[in-house]
Amino acid sequence: MHRSSFLVVSVVLCAATVLGAQASGPVTPDQATLEKEFDAAIHPDELGGWMKSLASQPNHVGSPHDKANAEWILAHFKAWGWDAHIETFDVLYPTPIHETLKLLGRKPFKATLQEKPIKGDSSAAAKDPALPAYLAYQGDGDVKAELVYVNYGMKEDYDALERLGVSVKGKIVIVRYGSGWRGLKPKLAQEHGAVGCIIYSDPRDDGYSVEATYPNGPMRPPQGIQRGSVQDMTLYPGDPLTPDIGATKDAKRLSVAQARTILKIPALPISYADARVFLEALGGQVVPAAWRGSLPITYRVGPSKALVHLAVKSDWSLKTIYDVIAVMKGSAYPDQWVLRGNHHDGWVFGASDPLSGQAALLSEAKAIGSLAASGWRPKRTIVYTSWDGEEPGLIGSTEWAETHGDELKQKAILYINSDTNNRGILELGGSQDFEHLATGVAADVSDPETGVSVGQRLRAKLRLAALDPEAKEKDHAKAIAKIAADPDRDVPIAALGSGSDYSAFLQHLGVPALSVEYGGEGNSGGVYHSRYDTFEHHKRFDDPGFVYDALLAKTIGRLVLRLSDADLPLQQAGDFADSISLYLTEVKKLAGEKREAAETQAKLLNDRAFALVADPTKSSGTPTPLKQVPQFDFAPLEKASERLKTSAKGYDDALAKSGAGLSPDRLARVQALMQSIDQTLASDTGLPGRPWFKNLIYAPGTLTGYGAKTLPGVREAIEQQRWDDVNRYIKLTADALNAYSDRLDSAAAVLNGG
Amino acid sequence: MHRSSFLVVSVVLCAATVLGAQASGPVTPDQATLEKEFDAAIHPDELGGWMKSLASQPNHVGSPHDKANAEWILAHFKAWGWDAHIETFDVLYPTPIHETLKLLGRKPFKATLQEKPIKGDSSAAAKDPALPAYLAYQGDGDVKAELVYVNYGMKEDYDALERLGVSVKGKIVIVRYGSGWRGLKPKLAQEHGAVGCIIYSDPRDDGYSVEATYPNGPMRPPQGIQRGSVQDMTLYPGDPLTPDIGATKDAKRLSVAQARTILKIPALPISYADARVFLEALGGQVVPAAWRGSLPITYRVGPSKALVHLAVKSDWSLKTIYDVIAVMKGSAYPDQWVLRGNHHDGWVFGASDPLSGQAALLSEAKAIGSLAASGWRPKRTIVYTSWDGEEPGLIGSTEWAETHGDELKQKAILYINSDTNNRGILELGGSQDFEHLATGVAADVSDPETGVSVGQRLRAKLRLAALDPEAKEKDHAKAIAKIAADPDRDVPIAALGSGSDYSAFLQHLGVPALSVEYGGEGNSGGVYHSRYDTFEHHKRFDDPGFVYDALLAKTIGRLVLRLSDADLPLQQAGDFADSISLYLTEVKKLAGEKREAAETQAKLLNDRAFALVADPTKSSGTPTPLKQVPQFDFAPLEKASERLKTSAKGYDDALAKSGAGLSPDRLARVQALMQSIDQTLASDTGLPGRPWFKNLIYAPGTLTGYGAKTLPGVREAIEQQRWDDVNRYIKLTADALNAYSDRLDSAAAVLNGG
Repeated sequence: MHRSSFLVVSVVLCAATVLGAQASGPVTPDQATLEKEFDAAIHPDELGGWMKSLASQPNHVGSPHDKANAEWILAHFKAWGWDAHIETFDVLYPTPIHETLKLLGRKPFKATLQEKPIKGDSSAAAKDPALPAYLAYQGDGDVKAELVYVNYGMKEDYDALERLGVSVKGKIVIVRYGSGWRGLKPKLAQEHGAVGCIIYSDPRDDGYSVEATYPNGPMRPPQGIQRGSVQDMTLYPGDPLTPDIGATKDAKRLSVAQARTILKIPALPISYADARVFLEALGGQVVPAAWRGSLPITYRVGPSKALVHLAVKSDWSLKTIYDVIAVMKGSAYPDQWVLRGNHHDGWVFGASDPLSGQAALLSEAKAIGSLAASGWRPKRTIVYTSWDGEEPGLIGSTEWAETHGDELKQKAILYINSDTNNRGILELGGSQDFEHLATGVAADVSDPETGVSVGQRLRAKLRLAALDPEAKEKDHAKAIAKIAADPDRDVPIAALGSGSDYSAFLQHLGVPALSVEYGGEGNSGGVYHSRYDTFEHHKRFDDPGFVYDALLAKTIGRLVLRLSDADLPLQQAGDFADSISLYLTEVKKLAGEKREAAETQAKLLNDRAFALVADPTKSSGTPTPLKQVPQFDFAPLEKASERLKTSAKGYDDALAKSGAGLSPDRLARVQALMQSIDQTLASDTGLPGRPWFKNLIYAPGTLTGYGAKTLPGVREAIEQQRWDDVNRYIKLTADALNAYSDRLDSAAAVLNGG
Repeated sequence: MHRSSFLVVSVVLCAATVLGAQASGPVTPDQATLEKEFDAAIHPDELGGWMKSLASQPNHVGSPHDKANAEWILAHFKAWGWDAHIETFDVLYPTPIHETLKLLGRKPFKATLQEKPIKGDSSAAAKDPALPAYLAYQGDGDVKAELVYVNYGMKEDYDALERLGVSVKGKIVIVRYGSGWRGLKPKLAQEHGAVGCIIYSDPRDDGYSVEATYPNGPMRPPQGIQRGSVQDMTLYPGDPLTPDIGATKDAKRLSVAQARTILKIPALPISYADARVFLEALGGQVVPAAWRGSLPITYRVGPSKALVHLAVKSDWSLKTIYDVIAVMKGSAYPDQWVLRGNHHDGWVFGASDPLSGQAALLSEAKAIGSLAASGWRPKRTIVYTSWDGEEPGLIGSTEWAETHGDELKQKAILYINSDTNNRGILELGGSQDFEHLATGVAADVSDPETGVSVGQRLRAKLRLAALDPEAKEKDHAKAIAKIAADPDRDVPIAALGSGSDYSAFLQHLGVPALSVEYGGEGNSGGVYHSRYDTFEHHKRFDDPGFVYDALLAKTIGRLVLRLSDADLPLQQAGDFADSISLYLTEVKKLAGEKREAAETQAKLLNDRAFALVADPTKSSGTPTPLKQVPQFDFAPLEKASERLKTSAKGYDDALAKSGAGLSPDRLARVQALMQSIDQTLASDTGLPGRPWFKNLIYAPGTLTGYGAKTLPGVREAIEQQRWDDVNRYIKLTADALNAYSDRLDSAAAVLNGG
């Protein structure tokens, strides 16, 4: 479509476009044309080419190629017509100077800590060692101690270990990747008195048990190592020295010793080829059945007879990170920002993580630039962001969000994030008041493998998930399946925890966010954060033909276009009210289950049942007594949830009746009320012990790391036996929901002519 | 205690003894003295010595040592004062003449099929090969075909395989041991069109994953092989040529071709050292996660590119088996028999299986003989049985029970079985109308490890079992835990399926049975049916000091003594009524769940949900449609269950009020009514498709093999979508329960003075 004709259409059908964006039904012919134009500018091969270039050298924070990539991205944004710049921050980013891991004793062994390059793969191109295997923000140290195996190193594993009569005090622990976030593993080890922590990748979790190993198949080869951050992001992400504020040149910084998110004990990640030697050195009892991996050995808890020597020494200097920010100013509402981001830094080459999502983002930016070149202008301002420093701790996005917090609170409409992408089914997470918008887009994007819409495929997946006998939260899965099966209801989107760049927006500022990715059929998990996450691997195993990377661009592009072109707000409050109602049901049920479990356990302890059943030749002690669970007064939350349903219906009905007839003044008042409505869910108080996290609806779990906790103030207080916090956060959360309902009522009144 | 004083006490306190045996409270001082006397005659070292002698040479059916053991046992019974003899049967018992298993193709491999002897272990004593690894009653054949892996080879595995788009038609299948009974594996393979079947022991299930391997630890070494029978015992156990009748010299026999319990395809068991080579030869898709074992390979479904050559040729002649039968005639009620049995034949040396239980049985027999030598005589007749041919198919017990069926129906009070025994917690299975008796005994036997009664320890175990998040039948486990937690209720005993010698008594004749063993802490599973189930293994890993083998003798001895000394019947009907009520709740719930699952699946199929979610690069088809489940009329069973509760209460109350005052005539009438009451639960019709199994309350599952199915006519009809059988067996089972209630009512009337 040429520039002149396009302009006419877009002006004439403006009001209809607005209405079209409200429904999950078909969009207006005008919007459809625009999106077709947009699609035509997306070329899978181009995405592949960009990935190949960006992934050609190691691109972690501080590497030459990381900076070069930022400059390359900047240049392209500019060439595509965006008003772009690089914003830098100076952040604490430790890099290893020296690492040692040895098994001492009669059969000494020195861990290789190296990933050999693979012929025919980009991994062979980089200098060796390209980037040592390490865990960012571990605590330097030099320790010699016995070794103990603690399965995944999660809380329940330490509970089980205690019953086995084994302590990690003064020991080095070895744990495997999986179950919960990496950073919790050395943190929990440290809290239990361990002096060091080794994390390895068991072949059962992402090695030969799952599929053939790279280069024969997608999975982790014996020498593959998962790097990563162990910064305590459950307290706050971003630069450890500048919580709450941007790490600008002149920012007031904490000392390294003051930074609570840096660990105190040394930690290293290792391969399963190395790990096997250490695991075979363990004596003591055989592990519980669920702790067994797939190495051909008898897994034992330990301790080892031989000592293990672990030493890490890092360079703790500040490094510069490079965020690329690109703006396309809105024609009608320049102070309403639609934000879109994906990070560009990786571990070593980072093809799938994050460059698959970055390529999609670039493709969107180019296509939007091309629409703009044809004469189209967004009504709202579009801000594209390419973050640096995500891998060590969501640093680029967090520092930028903290620096521009006030402005973002005033202007941000929605932040849309992506990260690793691969072949498969749409994955939607985020603020459920944008569920209706996402449903509309998902209905309009066709899945290349099945021919149905990606929304329909997602609905099918959510329905089948409830049949999974292994499903952990069966009731939740069933509730979601029921919604997904109803074509008259919007596609349920999952709550967000953490693990990518939406965190500072959603959980610190209260800006609503969506996470949009494809996945489940590609397989980058086996090379995750290793040297083998390369262009060749992505092309062979994750998204042959870059079909789903391109599809991600088409999907998110639609979200951006509809958001930037609509006059009326795009929130739909009913979906959010339904989600709150479901979450409340869950926390009430949780309290009841905890109460029953504590009562049952008390009787069993009283009757010595655990002691009587225990095999006296094994150390199997009694479990730690659970606190008895009082009755909680959920009434404030129940009332707030009921009120939200009523207010949501009032608002949604009013919005559906509105349209072109709304006066500019009333439109502006509605926009103002709804632009910041999600911020009512962010409390100044924040969550217990971690006030950086202000959102009272969504948070990463303190004991899951990435996994989401909904109504976190209440839910985690129940889980963690903090009874006072339960009652306190029932009230705080109810207050937040009531404030949200107040806004809805005000907006409805304006829409209804008030 | 001397003979004269003992006699006086036993006569004087006779009535009190009767009453004592009714309650689970303390027995009379007299009975306690008798049992103390009995205990004093049990010597753990003596049990160990017998085991060492009986396990010194291979003792499978047809081996010289099997016959020698029977003669040795006979001689000892006689020496201990029993009226004993050997009863022989001539049964079809195939032994391998020739076995071949080869991987053909570019990297040919010949399976060793051998278990090397281990130094310092009895396994080194026998000629090599002691007994080839084979599966009794496989179908001879010589086939070459591609190989397919089908996990445990159970029904659900074939369902999953079908969805993976892989057929076993014309293929040889390789499956691992575990999940269900061995014999179902080649049977299901055959039903799905396979031409051969290999069964191997995966290290995940009983090898190095579980513990160190023998001789370093208890588990299966790489070369260890599980032999066993694959006779289709779900149709009928015993000699395949003489269903329903005893395999006496002149019995009318079927031809081998007519025998439905013999398979038609060749099958062999192999070690994981051998299996690894075959599994590594498999191509095709990666297996579902639950199918992965612990070999350091990527498990694939297949088929293999290379062909596999499997050939087995057997000697199908008749062999003689030797049951030892020892009788001690009752002084008061010689025609009321208390039966006790354990088999003596093993696979190779058979130390744990079956000689641990056999040693206990011998110890009981010696102690009872010693009581008799002191002047005590049982009121009822005691029959001790040492079975041959259990391993190939419960042959010795089945042929004997079939031969003496009419007499047993008239005279048998209860059959008490044991088999493999080891250190741990009491395991009780059987007819729940003897739950009260078992509870009384369990309360009076002290556990050597904890000092509490074995009953109290079992209660603790049943309570903790309900907490297991992996528990398969959670509702059942919870119901059982609730009963176990109540000290005023009897210890729940589990329903019996099959797998040992109680089957013909309980399920064919309707004679009530109890299975009594200890276990859970010893570890003979890793050498089960291998050459390494030796005296040394049992002594090191299963029951050091033969403490629990001796404890089994003390436990079962008490049951035998109380049963043989009581005047009044020892059934307590309330426990049985409670069990029926629980089972009925379960089958009704099962029907509801099946109905809901079928409805959900129909909607998902209609919406193409399975097809939409499937990865098109993998063959993941839609599941086979479930039949829609009609509403069943459970009313007859509900009414029968309610009536049973009422009748049970009436009988139990009447029994509690009775005592010494009952006239000999009325006592005889009550005894007659109650002696055969359990036979009312055995219907002439038998179960669908397998009329040998007549018991309508307990049966081995047709798709579990050993695992029990309660109310099997109804439950399995629901599980297997045979809707007509559901309604038919609701009525048949209700009739049986009503007949049982009729008996209770009659007995109560007599007790109440009628």
